[in-house]
Amino acid sequence: MKLKYLVSAMALVVLSSGTAMAKTPDMGSFHADMGSCQSCHAKPIKVTDSETHENAQCKSCHGEYAELANDKLQFDPHNSHLGDINCTSCHKGHEEPKFYCNECHSFDIKPMPFSDAKKKKSWDDGWDQDKIQKAIAAGPSETTQVLVVGAGSAGFNASLAAKKAGANVILVDKAPFSGGNSMISAGGMNAVGTKQQTAHGVEDKVEWFIEDAMKGGRQQNDIKLVTILAEQSADGVQWLESLGANLDDLKRSGGARVDRTHRPHGGKSSGPEIIDTLRKAAKEQGIDTRLNSRVVKLVVNDDHSVVGAVVHGKHTGYYMIGAKSVVLATGGYGMNKEMIAYYRPTMKDMTSSNNITATGDGVLMAKEIGASMTDIDWVQAHPTVGKDSRILISETVRGVGAVMVNKDGNRFISELTTRDKASDAILKQPGQFAWIIFDNQLYKKAKMVRGYDHLEMLYKGDTVEQLAKSTGMKVADLAKTVSDYNGYVASGKDTAFGRADMPLNMTQSPYYAVKVAPGIHHTMGGVAINTTASVLDLQSKPIDGLFAAGEVTGGVHGYNRLGGNAIADTVVFGRIAGDNAAKHALDK
Amino acid sequence: MKLKYLVSAMALVVLSSGTAMAKTPDMGSFHADMGSCQSCHAKPIKVTDSETHENAQCKSCHGEYAELANDKLQFDPHNSHLGDINCTSCHKGHEEPKFYCNECHSFDIKPMPFSDAKKKKSWDDGWDQDKIQKAIAAGPSETTQVLVVGAGSAGFNASLAAKKAGANVILVDKAPFSGGNSMISAGGMNAVGTKQQTAHGVEDKVEWFIEDAMKGGRQQNDIKLVTILAEQSADGVQWLESLGANLDDLKRSGGARVDRTHRPHGGKSSGPEIIDTLRKAAKEQGIDTRLNSRVVKLVVNDDHSVVGAVVHGKHTGYYMIGAKSVVLATGGYGMNKEMIAYYRPTMKDMTSSNNITATGDGVLMAKEIGASMTDIDWVQAHPTVGKDSRILISETVRGVGAVMVNKDGNRFISELTTRDKASDAILKQPGQFAWIIFDNQLYKKAKMVRGYDHLEMLYKGDTVEQLAKSTGMKVADLAKTVSDYNGYVASGKDTAFGRADMPLNMTQSPYYAVKVAPGIHHTMGGVAINTTASVLDLQSKPIDGLFAAGEVTGGVHGYNRLGGNAIADTVVFGRIAGDNAAKHALDK
Repeated sequence: MKLKYLVSAMALVVLSSGTAMAKTPDMGSFHADMGSCQSCHAKPIKVTDSETHENAQCKSCHGEYAELANDKLQFDPHNSHLGDINCTSCHKGHEEPKFYCNECHSFDIKPMPFSDAKKKKSWDDGWDQDKIQKAIAAGPSETTQVLVVGAGSAGFNASLAAKKAGANVILVDKAPFSGGNSMISAGGMNAVGTKQQTAHGVEDKVEWFIEDAMKGGRQQNDIKLVTILAEQSADGVQWLESLGANLDDLKRSGGARVDRTHRPHGGKSSGPEIIDTLRKAAKEQGIDTRLNSRVVKLVVNDDHSVVGAVVHGKHTGYYMIGAKSVVLATGGYGMNKEMIAYYRPTMKDMTSSNNITATGDGVLMAKEIGASMTDIDWVQAHPTVGKDSRILISETVRGVGAVMVNKDGNRFISELTTRDKASDAILKQPGQFAWIIFDNQLYKKAKMVRGYDHLEMLYKGDTVEQLAKSTGMKVADLAKTVSDYNGYVASGKDTAFGRADMPLNMTQSPYYAVKVAPGIHHTMGGVAINTTASVLDLQSKPIDGLFAAGEVTGGVHGYNRLGGNAIADTVVFGRIAGDNAAKHALDK
Repeated sequence: MKLKYLVSAMALVVLSSGTAMAKTPDMGSFHADMGSCQSCHAKPIKVTDSETHENAQCKSCHGEYAELANDKLQFDPHNSHLGDINCTSCHKGHEEPKFYCNECHSFDIKPMPFSDAKKKKSWDDGWDQDKIQKAIAAGPSETTQVLVVGAGSAGFNASLAAKKAGANVILVDKAPFSGGNSMISAGGMNAVGTKQQTAHGVEDKVEWFIEDAMKGGRQQNDIKLVTILAEQSADGVQWLESLGANLDDLKRSGGARVDRTHRPHGGKSSGPEIIDTLRKAAKEQGIDTRLNSRVVKLVVNDDHSVVGAVVHGKHTGYYMIGAKSVVLATGGYGMNKEMIAYYRPTMKDMTSSNNITATGDGVLMAKEIGASMTDIDWVQAHPTVGKDSRILISETVRGVGAVMVNKDGNRFISELTTRDKASDAILKQPGQFAWIIFDNQLYKKAKMVRGYDHLEMLYKGDTVEQLAKSTGMKVADLAKTVSDYNGYVASGKDTAFGRADMPLNMTQSPYYAVKVAPGIHHTMGGVAINTTASVLDLQSKPIDGLFAAGEVTGGVHGYNRLGGNAIADTVVFGRIAGDNAAKHALDK
C-alpha cells in the first residue's frame, strides 16, 4: 500500500493527537523518528539546491502527484495548474511548511501537516555583497558554455536551443519550481501563418501582425524586433508542437485584427501546457536544471565581457559559475514594489497578477554592469484582475464574448480595446472597478470561467435582474445594457462602442459576473537588445557574452503589449538568444 | 562711512575678542544688541520667504556687492559668478552661516563672522505629507494664472513669455537665490542662422543643426522637438539680446560640425551672463519671484487637470497656490544620488557638476500624477570634471585647442568627440582620469582657464618635460604626444584620432595641465512633452494645465546631449511653455 493513503491518516493522527505528537513538530524529525535521516536524505547527507534526492524519496513512498490527486478536495494542491513540481516547494523538512498556492490565492484550507514547525528566515532573504565578492575572488567552482538565468518559457527555450546548437548548458532558477510567470499565463501564443490559422480559415499576414503590434505599442516598439517576432512566430509554434505541446485552438486577443492566439485544445490554459512540455523536453535532453538557485551578480572581466555569474544556492551558498555566454531570462519586475513605485508611482498601490518570482533581478544585474535599458518605465496594467485578488481574469473571457460594465451596469468601452485603454477607462469608473458579465452559453464554452467559479469568484443570477441585485448594479441599467447588446449581436454592429467581434449574445440563464480592476501585469521596458538578442551597453554596443530574452528585455512591445505577444516573445527570442549564446561560446 | 569698511573691522573684533563677544554668537542678536530687531526686520516682524526686506537692510548699511568687492581676497564671495544674490544665502540671522561657494568648491577660507552660532535643522529637510494634504484641503491661499516652478533659464524665460502674453505670473524657486544649473553653465547657447554666424562667416543650416543633434542623441531624440529647437534657436538668441545679454562670440562644441555656440564676448561664462540678464528683466517687468519656496506637490482635480501646487516656504510653511497653468522648469536630477543609483547605477559613485538644486523634484511630482516619461534613465557624464572636485572643465577648453592625454601622457581619442564617447574612453584609461593640456597661447586666449588657475586647479611647467614631471606623466610619452600633435596642426590632419578642428598648437611656454574625470552632468530623460511643451500622460495625451521646459523634460536630446543644446532648450522651450501656459490660462 503506497504511503499516499497513509499520509491522510497520518496527518490526521498528527493533528488530532496534538499533545502526543507535540515533541515532533517538523516533518524531518517525524521521518527520522520513524526511520532515519536516510528516509529523506542520501548518506552521507548532501542536499543539492534542487533537493532532487529528497523529492524522489517523497514520491518513492507517497506516490506521484497523479496518484495523490484527490478530487474530493475543493482545492487539491497535488492536481494544480503548477503541475509536477517539487514536493519541497510546500513541504519542508525542518521548518514550517508553506502553502505555495496562497502566494496568489487565498484558499481557506485546513493547516498542512507539521504546520507548527519552527519558522525559519528564508534562505533567499537579501543578497550578501561580501559573500558575492568572495565568490568572485575564488573564481568559478565550475564552468559551462551557456548559463541560462530563469526557467520560465524564455529560459527553457534558450536552453533547448543552445543544447541543440551543440553547447553544454546550465539552467538556474531561484524558485522551488520552474515556470516563472509563463507558467501562470492563460492567453496563448500569437503567431501568423500557422497550419492552425489555415485550418480555421483565418487569413493573416506578417505585415498585419507587425502593424497590430506597432499600433498597440503606440509605434514606440523597435520595428526590427517586432518584424523578427512576426516572421519567426509560426516556426515557434511548430517548435513547441515538435516538443509535444498542443496549440490547436485559436482565439482573438485585444488589438489583433484576426484570430491569431494559439491555445491548447479544449480551453486549457496555455501556460501550464507550454511549461509542462518544456520541462519534459529539458529533462529528456539532460539539461542541468537547478532550482532554489538565485543568480545575484553578473561577472565581467577587464575588457567588460561577461564571464559568468555568482549563484546563491539554497544549500550550497554563494558560488561562481564560469560561462562563455550568459542568457538573462529572468522575467519582468511586476512584483518588485520598489521598482514599480519608482518607475510608475501611479501603480504603486495596485495588485499584481504576477508570480512572486517577477522581481526584476535581470534588470538590476544588467544595469549594474552598464547595460542600457529601453522604455524601462513602461508598465502595463491588465484591466481585469479579480478585484482584491491576484487572479487574472483572462482577456480570453472578453474575447470569446463576455461584456464589461461599470458599477451601475453600463458599458463604457469596447471590450476588445487594448489593455492600456481598457485599464485607463476602468480607473475612471466609479469605485475604479468593473464587472465582466456573461451567460450560460459562455460558461459552457470557456473552461476558464468554470475555473473562476471553482475559485468562488463568480456572482450568479437566474435572471439579469437577479444578477443586478446580487452585484449591486442598477437593475434597469443592466437590463438595458443586455438588451442593447443582444441587439448589436443580432445586427452585427455595436453602435455604442464599435466592438468588432461579438461571438455570443446573453440570452441563456443563468447569468454570471466577476468583479475586476486593473492590476500590474507586464513590464514592457527592460534590458536593451539587438536582433541577435545581445544585450547592449550604454553606447548601444553588444556586451560580449551577454544575451537576454522575454519580459526582461525592452523594445519588443513598445508602450503597450498585446495579449499573446509575451509568450511569442519568450519562444522566438528565447530560441534566438540560446542559439547565439551557443555560437558565441563555441566560437570563443 | 558705509558700514562695508566697518564689517571687516567688526568681524575681526568679533573673532579676535572671542570671550568678550562670546555671549552674542549669532548675527541677529549682534544687530539687536547694537540697535534693535528693526535693524534687519520690518515692524511688526513679518519675514517673507525671499527675505527681501532683510536683504535690503543689509545693503542699506553694508553697501551693494559692487562696493563690497575686495580684490585683495583670493576668493571674494561678493564678486563671484553667482552675481547679485541674497546676502542671506550665506549670512543667517539666527543660525550658523553657510559659505554657499563650498557647495561646489572647497575654498580654504577664514571662518565667516558668527560661525559659531547655533546649528539649526534646514527648513527644507524633507516633505511633510500631512501638511501638504492640509494645504490642499484648505484650498488656494492665493491664485494666479501661470505658476512657474524653478527660476533657472527655462523658468525665467517661461515667466517672461507668459507675462508678455498677458498673463499674471508667480515664479518660485526653492534655493536662496535664482539661477539653478543654468547659472553655472559655461559653454553657451547653440543657434543656427544668427547675425553672429554671418559676422563670423560661418555657413550653417537648420538641417545641419538637426542632423548633428540627432546624431549626437543616437537618433533617439524626438525629431519634432529637435526641429523646433533648431528653427527657433536664432530667435531665442535675439530674445536674450533684446533683454540685454551679450552673446557675440562663437565657438564649436562637441558633435557640432560648425561654430554654433553663442557666448558672451571676451570669454565670460555664458550662465552668469544669461541669468543676470533674465533676473534684471524679471525684476523690471514686475514678475513676482519667490525664493526659499519649494513646490512639493502638483494639485489635480477630478478630471485630472492641474489646478495649482503646494509650496513649502521657508517662513510661511506649506500653502497652496491656485493656478490655471503650471510650468515645470525644475531642471535635472544630477544631484539626486538615489535617482542616479536607480536609473544609472554605473554612475552612482561619480561626482556631479550640478548645482545642489538639481534633485529631480519636477520628475518626481509629475510621475506622481501620472505624467509619462521619455528616456528617463538616460544620464550624461561630462567627460572633464575636475578630478575629485565638482568644477566642470568646460568643453570650451578643448574646443579652443586643448589636447587630452591619459595618465602616461598619451592621447586616446579625438578631443572633439561627443560627451558619451569621451567619458567612456576616459573611464577605460588607467586610473579612470585624464589630463587636459595646453600652452600659454591658450592660457592668454581663454579667460576660463585663468579662472581654473585662480581656483588653483592647474599644474604648470616651463617645459613639456617639467609639466610631465609635475603631473607624473611619462616624460618621453608626453614629449612625443606634443610634437606629434604640433605636426598634425601644421599639416592640418590629425592622423592619430581624426580631430577635425585644431585651432592651436603647443609651442609657447609655460605649459599647463588640469586633471579631469567624468562626472554626472545632464539628465537627458525626463517628463514627456509635445511640441506645445504640454506634459503628456500615460496615454500620451496632454495633461490639462501642465507644461514643462528645460532639463526636466525628455526627448529633446535623445541618448546624448550636445554641448550648447541645453541652454538653447531652456530658452526655446521655456518661451513656448510660458506662451502656451498663458494662452491656456487666459482661455480658461
